[in-house]
Order: sequence, then structure tokens, then C-alpha cells
Amino acid sequence: MEKIKVGIVNVTGYAGIELARLLVRHPFVELFSVTGRSTAGQKLVEVFPHMTGAADLTIESELGNVEFAFAAMPHKESASEVMKLIERGIKVLDISADFRLSNPEDYNEWYGFTHPSPELLDKAVYGLPELYRKDIATADLVANPGCYPTGAILAMAPAIKHGIVEEDIIIDSKSGISGAGRTLTTVSHYSEANENTTAYALKGHRHLPEIVQELTFLSGEAVNVTFVPHLVPMTRGILSTCYASLRSEFADKEDLQAEINVIYREFYKDEPFVKVVDAPPHTKNTWGSNMCHVYPFVDLRTGRLIVVSCIDNLVKGAAGQAIQNMNIMSGFAEVAGLEAPPIYP
Amino acid sequence: MEKIKVGIVNVTGYAGIELARLLVRHPFVELFSVTGRSTAGQKLVEVFPHMTGAADLTIESELGNVEFAFAAMPHKESASEVMKLIERGIKVLDISADFRLSNPEDYNEWYGFTHPSPELLDKAVYGLPELYRKDIATADLVANPGCYPTGAILAMAPAIKHGIVEEDIIIDSKSGISGAGRTLTTVSHYSEANENTTAYALKGHRHLPEIVQELTFLSGEAVNVTFVPHLVPMTRGILSTCYASLRSEFADKEDLQAEINVIYREFYKDEPFVKVVDAPPHTKNTWGSNMCHVYPFVDLRTGRLIVVSCIDNLVKGAAGQAIQNMNIMSGFAEVAGLEAPPIYP
Amino acid sequence: MEKIKVGIVNVTGYAGIELARLLVRHPFVELFSVTGRSTAGQKLVEVFPHMTGAADLTIESELGNVEFAFAAMPHKESASEVMKLIERGIKVLDISADFRLSNPEDYNEWYGFTHPSPELLDKAVYGLPELYRKDIATADLVANPGCYPTGAILAMAPAIKHGIVEEDIIIDSKSGISGAGRTLTTVSHYSEANENTTAYALKGHRHLPEIVQELTFLSGEAVNVTFVPHLVPMTRGILSTCYASLRSEFADKEDLQAEINVIYREFYKDEPFVKVVDAPPHTKNTWGSNMCHVYPFVDLRTGRLIVVSCIDNLVKGAAGQAIQNMNIMSGFAEVAGLEAPPIYP
Amino acid sequence: MEKIKVGIVNVTGYAGIELARLLVRHPFVELFSVTGRSTAGQKLVEVFPHMTGAADLTIESELGNVEFAFAAMPHKESASEVMKLIERGIKVLDISADFRLSNPEDYNEWYGFTHPSPELLDKAVYGLPELYRKDIATADLVANPGCYPTGAILAMAPAIKHGIVEEDIIIDSKSGISGAGRTLTTVSHYSEANENTTAYALKGHRHLPEIVQELTFLSGEAVNVTFVPHLVPMTRGILSTCYASLRSEFADKEDLQAEINVIYREFYKDEPFVKVVDAPPHTKNTWGSNMCHVYPFVDLRTGRLIVVSCIDNLVKGAAGQAIQNMNIMSGFAEVAGLEAPPIYP
Repeated sequence: MEKIKVGIVNVTGYAGIELARLLVRHPFVELFSVTGRSTAGQKLVEVFPHMTGAADLTIESELGNVEFAFAAMPHKESASEVMKLIERGIKVLDISADFRLSNPEDYNEWYGFTHPSPELLDKAVYGLPELYRKDIATADLVANPGCYPTGAILAMAPAIKHGIVEEDIIIDSKSGISGAGRTLTTVSHYSEANENTTAYALKGHRHLPEIVQELTFLSGEAVNVTFVPHLVPMTRGILSTCYASLRSEFADKEDLQAEINVIYREFYKDEPFVKVVDAPPHTKNTWGSNMCHVYPFVDLRTGRLIVVSCIDNLVKGAAGQAIQNMNIMSGFAEVAGLEAPPIYP
Repeated sequence: MEKIKVGIVNVTGYAGIELARLLVRHPFVELFSVTGRSTAGQKLVEVFPHMTGAADLTIESELGNVEFAFAAMPHKESASEVMKLIERGIKVLDISADFRLSNPEDYNEWYGFTHPSPELLDKAVYGLPELYRKDIATADLVANPGCYPTGAILAMAPAIKHGIVEEDIIIDSKSGISGAGRTLTTVSHYSEANENTTAYALKGHRHLPEIVQELTFLSGEAVNVTFVPHLVPMTRGILSTCYASLRSEFADKEDLQAEINVIYREFYKDEPFVKVVDAPPHTKNTWGSNMCHVYPFVDLRTGRLIVVSCIDNLVKGAAGQAIQNMNIMSGFAEVAGLEAPPIYP
Repeated sequence: MEKIKVGIVNVTGYAGIELARLLVRHPFVELFSVTGRSTAGQKLVEVFPHMTGAADLTIESELGNVEFAFAAMPHKESASEVMKLIERGIKVLDISADFRLSNPEDYNEWYGFTHPSPELLDKAVYGLPELYRKDIATADLVANPGCYPTGAILAMAPAIKHGIVEEDIIIDSKSGISGAGRTLTTVSHYSEANENTTAYALKGHRHLPEIVQELTFLSGEAVNVTFVPHLVPMTRGILSTCYASLRSEFADKEDLQAEINVIYREFYKDEPFVKVVDAPPHTKNTWGSNMCHVYPFVDLRTGRLIVVSCIDNLVKGAAGQAIQNMNIMSGFAEVAGLEAPPIYP
Repeated sequence: MEKIKVGIVNVTGYAGIELARLLVRHPFVELFSVTGRSTAGQKLVEVFPHMTGAADLTIESELGNVEFAFAAMPHKESASEVMKLIERGIKVLDISADFRLSNPEDYNEWYGFTHPSPELLDKAVYGLPELYRKDIATADLVANPGCYPTGAILAMAPAIKHGIVEEDIIIDSKSGISGAGRTLTTVSHYSEANENTTAYALKGHRHLPEIVQELTFLSGEAVNVTFVPHLVPMTRGILSTCYASLRSEFADKEDLQAEINVIYREFYKDEPFVKVVDAPPHTKNTWGSNMCHVYPFVDLRTGRLIVVSCIDNLVKGAAGQAIQNMNIMSGFAEVAGLEAPPIYP
């Protein structure tokens, strides 16, 4: 099989360079073109010395002639870039938030801009393969989910879908600092972030409407979500601890834990990248890989379901999931290029 | 004023050595005797090279002739040690859990032993000065609160006391690794703990009955508590994010945030070690100090009060609060020996 | 090509489990058997939850019927295990130190035991492919170099070989904590190791005779080595900064830096896993990979050559180099199973 | 005794805010005025939430009426600021490099500017109390040593002074990231710095001429210095490992280690902030304090003296030493305000 040519728009952010790391070893694609702004003209390996395996790649200012493109731009900028690529007949996986929300109004409220292409929004598919695999397979434009939504939705989807819990959910997420990006900020300055834990964005993180949209879709009814993200001093990983009240018909069941274990395992039984585990998961056990570990726990004392999930925010939460989507869109084995185990310790 | 002689039973754990660090600079006490088991006979500074300021202190196997003792033993072992000290007429601050729970049955259920001295349990005072200052002042035995309960109770006390929220609370806490102690364990092995976040003890952490006891006492009604502790890769600090539903009479109030700010500030207005803050607190801003920062936030979208608190688990969560209690028990200025600012960055 | 069956003796240490991580993705081998002591009978994935890709593998007490074995035992214990494997006709890569030193006396001096099989010592090849590729190709027993020696020897080999520096070398190495192993120790307890840097083993680290042996062999004359290892708070990585005086015939050369760059590049020009770089290397740029970055720098001010090298101590410093050796011993492509780029950030 | 009024110019860098932390608890001074540029007009505690103990202090654009000033400006900018303060009759401790080098030419070579006040350079005293206590006591302007020079000079001073080693020294230093300052840079971006170790500035760090100047002064002869600084992933701390060849008259001495121990202990016997230790020191054992631990080790195998020292780069390497100097300049007890033990773990 001939390899298809793929490109990365804005390779110089953490999602972009993580795409490059994974794509250079992908069996069915050739990483043909990568772009960057301030670094255009430089060899990729000059800017990122770990990329010795892509010694010939030069960062360009415009994307070359590829069949498939990953857009790893900041939100708002991405939309117009994606529109141009789609017009060129290139299939696109967009890492940004610009095509995740189905209601164009949400962009005004949460991102502060009027969406330039509501009709493309209609065609874009939300790229969570565990929920939308079929739609992804035929899509020309897939919107990669946010890192927090990926972990949170995978944690709660089986419970919501099966009506086990009330439509009122608390998501307490703990993220590594790479989630804050490669742009320099005080919050990600080493001496500020190290030996520090903090909550942030209590007034409303931009990933909230995305979580609400998907959980509401799964439930069929409006789902109330309290979402509090936190920063913890590590580079990679998101652990989400989700809390929801059991519906009354479940709260008194004997063996509810066993029943829920069955439901979760059944829900994810064919999923290559979701594993339902029997003990609280560690972010480290997904480090560098596309795996999501999910641990549902019934707290009979308080009548709650607690679900803990973890992912690597740059892989299943960004570049890995993007490649999983590309694999589906391109008819490749879904796991192609994503089979390396997590790195431990 | 002549200094009183104080001692530390089991100086070699993290709480014990933190007591030593703070006590050697306390203006009104002399750190006169410290004990340890395997290290008895060695100079303190040999075992802990940072303690150059206590070059003359030798670790003993039995506590010398002191007026006040800090017991920093593991639970169960502490109770019998404390009983002996009380019989010798020595005032005791017990760092362990052995005198925190007022119901002796709880020790059977949560700690797996029958409490050897229920009558002493009756006399012991729960050492959270913000709630029990008067009782502490006259007590001979004070039980220092656990690290998680300290942060959680200080976060929720004003809201519970004022009936702002329902008696059903979720506490999601993130602790640094020193909370797991100085004893070697896989969970606190560097290569396992570093670059890792995990939840643990979902089936019931031993600090849960302590939190329930105190919040129930504050409320007057039984309080339902879901408590999930987490380990994050830092040495010191606990951040607790607490979630509770607003009672209906509060949920629709205009300016509820402002009202709650006033309630919290009023509640803690005379407290030297609690500060109500206007932005999500950072554990780093309490590092090495006895401060607790508390941030109440009204999430009108979901009708919840979210309160984030942070402390240094070894100071306000252990040794610092112990000294604060000793100050109160001894008639010293409550802040004596505890005035050094946190260390940043 | 049919895959060969390989096994790992003692999979439960960090080198052992890192071998497993890499071998499950190796194109030409089947990871057929793994052993452990206290964990025998458990599934590998129960003990190491990240190993979801080897869900069928059970830890055994004795190695199964394999064609090639990796011995990842502690020193001294390894020798007798290796002897048994060799007798069974199995080719062996020994991760331990037991077959690295050619002089049996050295084991008495540095490791405190009398070597049980000096004749096997004669047959064992020192597994640094950059120096001994040909001998490795035909060996039945290869001794994997230590982590520190790998970085140090690769840094200095070209300079020593070309007689550029005096035979008196200072090696100042900084290692991540995983180098101290998976066994619990105070030095690798999180709260002790975090936010801490220290030197250790100044009286003579066990890797010193290994470094001396190889540099002396390269030089033809006895090489004097001062080696001071340090622990720095990270999980993986070794950075070695090596200092040596330029021989007088080089000290005054114009363009010596350029000349040495050429020598180093020439020396390593066919090496897949050594890259001579133009700026001080970062351990992070080799993280999780088998790469070694080497940076030679001429300090004309003081007449010294300074060479900085870095590796991932668990890959090029242990499991990766072991697989590189197996590839050579088995006639596979040398890079098979080792091509994944480092993980950044 | 009435407290003297002191001020900090540029309180918003790490050295500046560390001065504030220590000065608010100093028994003999009142922190009366602090300045900052972009933050002028804000309360100190708004910008630095840990400074609850200085709730009344507002950041100003110009320094108020103080008797003593700490200038914590970047180099070059500091010189002109200091000149103005001296003209106002204020004693000054300058944290910057602008008055450390006695030869004005060095500023052109190493810092790229022509020194604006060579005559003030003559009057300035190099503020290493262990070497210049008497001169500091009568000075109006003291130049605080750099962080690296402090650790390196204290390590080597006794050996150089006593002629134990050759005048050719290698200093391999490992610094925490706070040494790179509070200004945002890629090198101190969390995800880049974490889990990473690197060497830098091999072509000549600006602290090199300072080290050479002082060691040469101690020796009486020109001292050759190779200095390679490294960044390791921790916030605070510098460990310096120094290597020098023993002079021939010492190399063969029996009991040289014991003799050197005596020399080092004698040299520092009255020093409150230098401790000669018997085992390799840990940066953690000086964390947050003004202590320097020094460990001299004789490597008879190679005829070298190795000296390892460690300090907290922001305390003995900056703000603490600055206060020690102020104490001497003002006739206070030298340890005033600096007596708190290091924080461990």
C-alpha cells in the first residue's frame, strides 16, 4: 500500500510536535509537510532536537501538497485555515475547538467570535471515536475533542447512556502543565508551577460547553455540569474524578458495583484505547500512549457513582486521538501508529 | 519569661521533624527532649542534617522531663503513649488520630482496634482552633486534626454553620506525597510518584469519619460526605475542592457571591491563620507556613457553592497547628513561632 | 520470518519492565516468558497496569523455553542464573555487571564476591555496539554496559582514540532517580529526592572500573578517571559532563573546535543511536529512546576538552541497548524495535 | 532599639520578593518601601499572595525615604540606580553584578557595557562575609556575590588559601530553575524544564570572571577556572562539585583527608552560615535557609581534591546573603533575621 501524504499546520505547539512524533512512525502515512510561523525555513530537528528521525523535514510557511491535514492552530485562527484546506479538497482533522460545538452561538458566548462558517460546522463530526466512529469514517472534517472533554466524556458516557445517574454531574479534573501550551505564561513558568496545585477557571472553562453538549446528547436530556479544572505539577496527564448521584432505582440495588462494572466493560468491550480497570487509575499508566483508563466506583454510603478516568492529555487528549480519527477517516487499522505502550516509570 | 520545656515523641517522622524545625525557633519554649526508636542515641543533626540549629540535641529512647509533649506516633501506638504522659502530669498534643473521634466505636470500624481509654477520649479536645479555641485553652489533651480534615472543615465551616448549603458535600482533595509519611512505600517511591496523579481510598479514607463528625457538629444534622483524596507529584500541600448544593432559599439570591464573601470574611475575621481570598488559591502560597487560604465561589449555573482551600499539610495540617494548639493551651500568643511567611517560589 | 521467542529473567525491576515495554513491539521477536520472584503467578498487567498490550503474559518463577534471554537480575545473583541459561544453549544478554569486567579480581574488589565463572567472563563481550559490534555479532553472552559507563564512554571514546586529550579524565554525571532502581530506599523516597540534588559514591562507584577498563582499552595506556555521580530530581536521564586536558600538540591549534567536530562526526557517522550535536544536549531530547547525544566543546581559555553526553538511563543505559545487542547477536536490523522517537515534552 | 527603615528596589523579581519574605520578620528593620515597574500602585500581597504578613505594603514606582536600600535590578540598570541612592546618602546592597568586578574593563568584555562609575567600583566591597567581613562593616556600597560564585568560592577558599591544590580548577554546578529568574523564557517553561537536565553557557558564563577574581585574590596567583553551569529540575538550590589537583607536597601525605578536614573546619569555625560536613551534602538540607554546606573529599586514586558545596540560590546565593551583609554594615547581629532552619522535606 502506498503511503498517503499528510501535513501538520502549526507543528510548533505541543499538539503539533506530538503529532509529528507519532506520524513519523506511522506505517501508512508519510509526514510530508509541516508549517510554522516564526520558525519557517528551519529544519524541524533544529527546533526540536529530539526529532532526529525526521532529519529532512523543513518547517514551511504554507502547507505542501498533502492528502490529509492536521490543523493544530489556536482557536479562531484555525477556522479560516481549515476552510481553505477543505476548499483544496484536503481532508482535515482540526485539533482546535473551532468545529467542536454544534451551535454557532456558543462560539460567541464562549470564545468571543462569530463563527465564520456555520455550514461547515454542520458537516464537521465530533471526533470521539468511541461515540461517533461511523460518522467519522465518512467525514471530510473531524473536530478533535478537547483534552478535558475526552477524559470526562469517556468516564461518564456509559452511566449517562444507561440512565444510571442523575443529569447533574461534577467533574474535578487535574491536568499536567503541558495542557497550558507551549506559549510562555506565568502559570507555566517552572518556579511558579512546580510544587504547586491550583484550581482555575471556576467561572467557566471553554471545555465546559463541549462536555455539556456531548453528555446532553448521550442522555437525551439537558445535563447540568460543574467542571473545575486544576493544574498539578507534572508535564503530561489528566485525571478526572466525576461525581453523580445514582438514580433512585439504582441506589438500593445489591451488587450495583458488579452490575456497573459489567455495563462499563460491555460499553467499551471493542474499544482498543479504553480500558475499564479495577483499581483507581494512575495517569502514569497512560503516559505517552493513546490509552484511557476508566474506573467506576459506587459509593453506597452517599448514593453516588464516582468515575475516575485518566489519559495523556497530549495523546488521547490531542495528537493520538487525532491520528485515531485519521485512521478511521482513511480506512486504516484504527490502532495504526498508536500501538506503543505507555512509558513507565 | 522563662521558657517551658517541651518534647517530641517520635521526632523521626515528617510531622515530628517539622515540629522540631518550628520549635527550635519558638520564642517561649525550649525543645528539651526528642525521642525515636531506631535512631535513639544519635544526634538529631546526624539524622537530619538540616537541623544544624539544634546541634546539641540527642535522640532519646524515652522522653525526658518536659512540661509539654507532642506525640507524633502512628495511630494505635499513640494512645498508650499519651496515656502514660497524661499520668505523668504532662500536657499533651497528640498528632495521631487516637483522640480525634468522640465515638469509641469509630476506632473499631475505621482503625481496627478497640480504644484503650474511652474516658480520656471524653476529655480530649479536637484541636481546630478556629472552632474550639476556648476548649483548647483549658485542655490537658488536644487531638490535632488530620491534614485533610483541616483543609476541608475550614473550607466548609462557614457555609455549614450558616445553613447555606445542603448537608451533602463532595470533597475532592489533592495532596503532596509527604502526606504518605516517611516510611518507604511503593506509592511514595520517587519514580512511581513523579509525573503521576491518582485517586485513592475511595472505599473510605480514615479521615472521612473525622470530617463527618465535625461538619455534623457544625450543622446540627447528619452531614453526608463523599471524600476522595488524590496524590499529586509535589512534596507539600493540600488543595481541597469542595462542592455542595445551595439551599433553595440561597440559590436564587442576587449578589449571593458578595453575601457569601461577607459571611466567610466575618467568620474568619479574627483568625490569624485563615485568609479568605478573591482568586483560586495556590498551595504554593501557603508553603512552609501555618496559613490556610479559603476561596468560596458560587456557581450560579448549577446552583452550587464551590469552596477551594489550601494548606501546607505538614504545617497547618500537622506540626504548625500542633504548635498553634500548644500556644493556646499554654497561654502564649497564638501566633508565636508561626509567623514566618510561606516560602515562594 | 518467524519470530524468535525471547524471555526476561526478573521482569519486575525497572530494566526488566522496560525490556518488556520495548519487546512487545519488536517486529522480530515474541516476548514468550517473563519471570519474577514475589510476583510469580500474577498477570504482568496486574503488576504493571500500563502493559495492557501484553494482557496474556503471566509472570513465571522459571524461564520458559526461549531462544534468547535477557537477565535483569541484581549483580552476583545474575552470574549463576546466566551460567544455567548458557548451559541450556540459550543466548544471553546480561543486564547486570557480572560479565562486564574482564579481570575477575575486580569482582572481589568492587563487588565483594569471587566470580563463579572466570572462563565465561573470557567469552563474554562488552555490549557497547559502537565499540564492539563485530564481537557482539558472534557472541553467545553479551554483558550490557552500565548506564553511567555508556554515556561516559560514548562521550570520550573519539577523543581518547585519537589521542586528543591526556589520560586523566573527570566525569561528572547527573542521573535521574530511576537509576537507583525499583527497590525502596530512602534516597529514592519521593519527599527526600524531590527538590534535591546531591553527589554520592565519591569513594568509588561500581561503574568506575568499567569506565577505566574501556577507556584504557581505547587509549592503550592506563587512563586515570575521577568519576562523581549525582542524583537529580527527575525519573529518567543521565547527563555526563566530561573534562580532560588537551594534549599539548592540540592545545594551540587554530580551529580545533572544527577539527574535533569532524573527528567526532566521523567516529559516529554510521551509528544509528549516537548523534553529535552543536549545542549542549538536554536529557529530555533522548527521553524514552535509545539515542545518545554527544556535544564536544573546546575550552581554549583553559586548554580543556569538555564533552557533554546524554542518554535515557533505562533505554540506551539499559533495556534499549540490550535490545540493540540482541538485534546484532540475532542478525536483525540493529534499529529494530528501537525506532520510536524520544517523547517531548 | 529603633528599627531602621529599609527598601527594596525591584521587589518583583525572585531575589526581590525573597528579600521581602526575610525582611518582614527581621527584628531590627522595618520594610518601609518597595518598588516595581509594571506593578507599581498594587498592594504587594495582590501580586504575591503569600505575603499576607505585609498586607499594608504598596509597590511604589520610586523608593521612599529609607536608610538602607537593596537594589535588585538587572545588571546595567542597577548601576545608575545605585549611583542615585548613594548620592542620597543611602547605604546600598546591590544584588546585581554591577559592582562585583574590580576591573571596569571586565564589564565591557562580560556584560557588554562601559561601567558608568568606575570610582564607585573602587569603593564597593565584594559582599562575601566569610572573606571580607571587616571591609563590609564599614562600606556604604556592598556588591552581593552571584549565586554560583558564592557556592564555588566557599568550596575552594580554604584549599586555595592554604595552597593545597594547583591553580587550575573545574567547577561543575547544578542549579535549580529559579536561578533563571522570574522573566518568562523557554528554558524555564515548566514542560521544557521538568524532567530535564542540561549544561549551558560553556562559552563563558558571566559568573566566571567573578569566580576567577576571587580565587586569584585568595591564591595570589592567577587561577585557571573551567566553570560549567547546569540546570536541573528543581526550584531552588545549587550544588557545586569542584575538582582540583593536589599539589605534589600534599598528594602523598598520609591522613590527608583528616588534615584537610581540620583545615576546612578551622577556616570556617566562626562562620554562622558555613558548615563543613562529613558526607556529600544535599541541596535540600539548605532549602530556604542561609546555610552553605561544604564537603571536602580527597580522591587519592587520582590525586585530586573534590569539594562539594550547596546553598539555596535565593538565600545564601542572593537575598539571605544580602541581609547578612546589611546586618554587618548596620552593626546588627550577623544572623539576625536569618535563623530559621531549612525546610525539610
